[in-house]
Amino acid sequence: MSRYWSKAIKNIKPYTPGEQPKDRRYIKLNTNENPYPPSSRAIEAIKNAADETLRLYPDPMCEELRETIAGYYRLRNNNVFIGNGSDELLAFSFPAFFEPAGKPVLFAEITYSFYPVYAALFNTNYNLIPVDEEFNIPEEGYYQANGGIIIANPNAPSGKGVSRETIKAILNRNESSVVILDEAYVDFGGQSAVKLINDYPNLLVIKTLSKSHSLAGLRVGYALGNEDLIEGIIRVKDSINSYTVDRLALAGAQEAIKDDDYFQETRSKIMKSRERVSVRLKDWGFKVISSQANFIFISSERCPGGILFQRLREKGILVRYFNKPKINNFIRVTIGTDVEMDCFLEAIKVIVRS
Amino acid sequence: MSRYWSKAIKNIKPYTPGEQPKDRRYIKLNTNENPYPPSSRAIEAIKNAADETLRLYPDPMCEELRETIAGYYRLRNNNVFIGNGSDELLAFSFPAFFEPAGKPVLFAEITYSFYPVYAALFNTNYNLIPVDEEFNIPEEGYYQANGGIIIANPNAPSGKGVSRETIKAILNRNESSVVILDEAYVDFGGQSAVKLINDYPNLLVIKTLSKSHSLAGLRVGYALGNEDLIEGIIRVKDSINSYTVDRLALAGAQEAIKDDDYFQETRSKIMKSRERVSVRLKDWGFKVISSQANFIFISSERCPGGILFQRLREKGILVRYFNKPKINNFIRVTIGTDVEMDCFLEAIKVIVRS
Repeated sequence: MSRYWSKAIKNIKPYTPGEQPKDRRYIKLNTNENPYPPSSRAIEAIKNAADETLRLYPDPMCEELRETIAGYYRLRNNNVFIGNGSDELLAFSFPAFFEPAGKPVLFAEITYSFYPVYAALFNTNYNLIPVDEEFNIPEEGYYQANGGIIIANPNAPSGKGVSRETIKAILNRNESSVVILDEAYVDFGGQSAVKLINDYPNLLVIKTLSKSHSLAGLRVGYALGNEDLIEGIIRVKDSINSYTVDRLALAGAQEAIKDDDYFQETRSKIMKSRERVSVRLKDWGFKVISSQANFIFISSERCPGGILFQRLREKGILVRYFNKPKINNFIRVTIGTDVEMDCFLEAIKVIVRS
Repeated sequence: MSRYWSKAIKNIKPYTPGEQPKDRRYIKLNTNENPYPPSSRAIEAIKNAADETLRLYPDPMCEELRETIAGYYRLRNNNVFIGNGSDELLAFSFPAFFEPAGKPVLFAEITYSFYPVYAALFNTNYNLIPVDEEFNIPEEGYYQANGGIIIANPNAPSGKGVSRETIKAILNRNESSVVILDEAYVDFGGQSAVKLINDYPNLLVIKTLSKSHSLAGLRVGYALGNEDLIEGIIRVKDSINSYTVDRLALAGAQEAIKDDDYFQETRSKIMKSRERVSVRLKDWGFKVISSQANFIFISSERCPGGILFQRLREKGILVRYFNKPKINNFIRVTIGTDVEMDCFLEAIKVIVRS
């Protein structure tokens, strides 16, 4: 604590990302990274962009990448904007669309734990919607008065998805609020709301290349929505940092999006592994929340979540554990390669048996 | 204007960066980029970092780069933090150190025009310190009650520097305020305040690799200061985006800092060109503000600034023009290569003669 900090910063509890350990080699199933390498075409594009033009600023409007993404989703360029990961775009949405100290923004009680941190920084009120034991979020929760809505679909850390019909119902009942769909994990089997963008001027969809395109280390996310919403985000970006996406990230992201075959191949592999591992764990008596993401959320009656986490760590396998009410008996396990998942299954079998 | 925007975003006037034109090839002297390529060692490091590890998140604490920079300045690692360009670090300083709607933050009437934009976004009050005709900022301006101070040294767009003794005097009179030195241009002949960091817990120095290290396209800046101030900035970063600097930027920046010989060589060349061009322009009757930066701020009695800007543009030379009181008769000219500056001199000679 410092006498030089603002009150807000003294009181805030910043988000803590999953650990990136350097002490030993782990099987890293803790931060939902993709176990497969990025598209080789993307890597080649980055190498080619690493030249003397790095002395020049990148395009602050990211026009080429916007065009590529717009083309991919059959939208217009002004329906797209790019950010330094989807977290940045989520953060920028708060001052863009939510009134400070205004009507509460709604999000689930159990969801991405960055939302309340953004709210604290930007002085946004919020109401949490309680979830049931299976981590279902009642649709009616979103029908109270609000100053905005954020829905992670699929949700984290549960992996539970919401259907497009439900999203439509929520949009219909909230015409005067911005409804943000955080689709960081949607490419692993969820129903994207992108198709609804032309019908709902209040819908903002936020996606990332970190997970489904194996590019967590490159920092590229994007927002899709009505051009007014996109312009709102650009206004915040241009009030913080004109250029948040560097030349290498622009080049790599562009090629990663274009290499659709590779994207389809890797995401299919991950979904297949997820199903295989889920079935096995259920056979062994684990509770496995039905997942549409690249991770599974599991618990065992025979071993508390905190112990599972600890024992796996000792065996060189990192997973994520959240010591919070309602989820403190679970661990979140990223889907790795088949070899990694076999190691995980082997380890967890031994742990619950002992 | 959209019904979905917050009041703040409706009213804000975002910062407009200098243009990055695509319509034709210009001699680009408008955004203070370095005319020389980045260190070849930095480019090599980036190419080497473009591999399958891009699937993994970067180190959110940027520890290796912090260590390299700390070593360079003989500071400790916790005196250093890294950002996506210095703009981001300046932006994060507002919620970290300045109380919203609190005592006014002080900065010069003529300075980097991003400061009032940050203030608008984060609801920070500010007082502008008037400058004289030579763009000197009276020291006494900083001796009024305040909630913080920002000094660009050298200042933009004038290029005028402030001595370390003056900075010391300002620090001594403002022990309870955070004093931010924006040293984006200091490597071109200014007096850095870095040496004062161990004596002043309220001093934060912000630097960038965009200008002096020819890496505007890579987006790396850093803050140097007391560990409490550094932690304040990290708290804001971790409330917006855990990873703002990607793996390639970390690798490239590290090697650029280490390649000190190249850095010394290019910055010397630029200072030499600046002196040569300044002397010539003065000979021709131009007013040339004495510059410690990689640009010069000039005006002519024979041709208004706006016209100079326009005529140069027509001749394929981009400079920066600010249509604002007190500076609307000036143009800001980035120092390019000697060949580029000869073209510029030739063009401007023709313009003022006709």
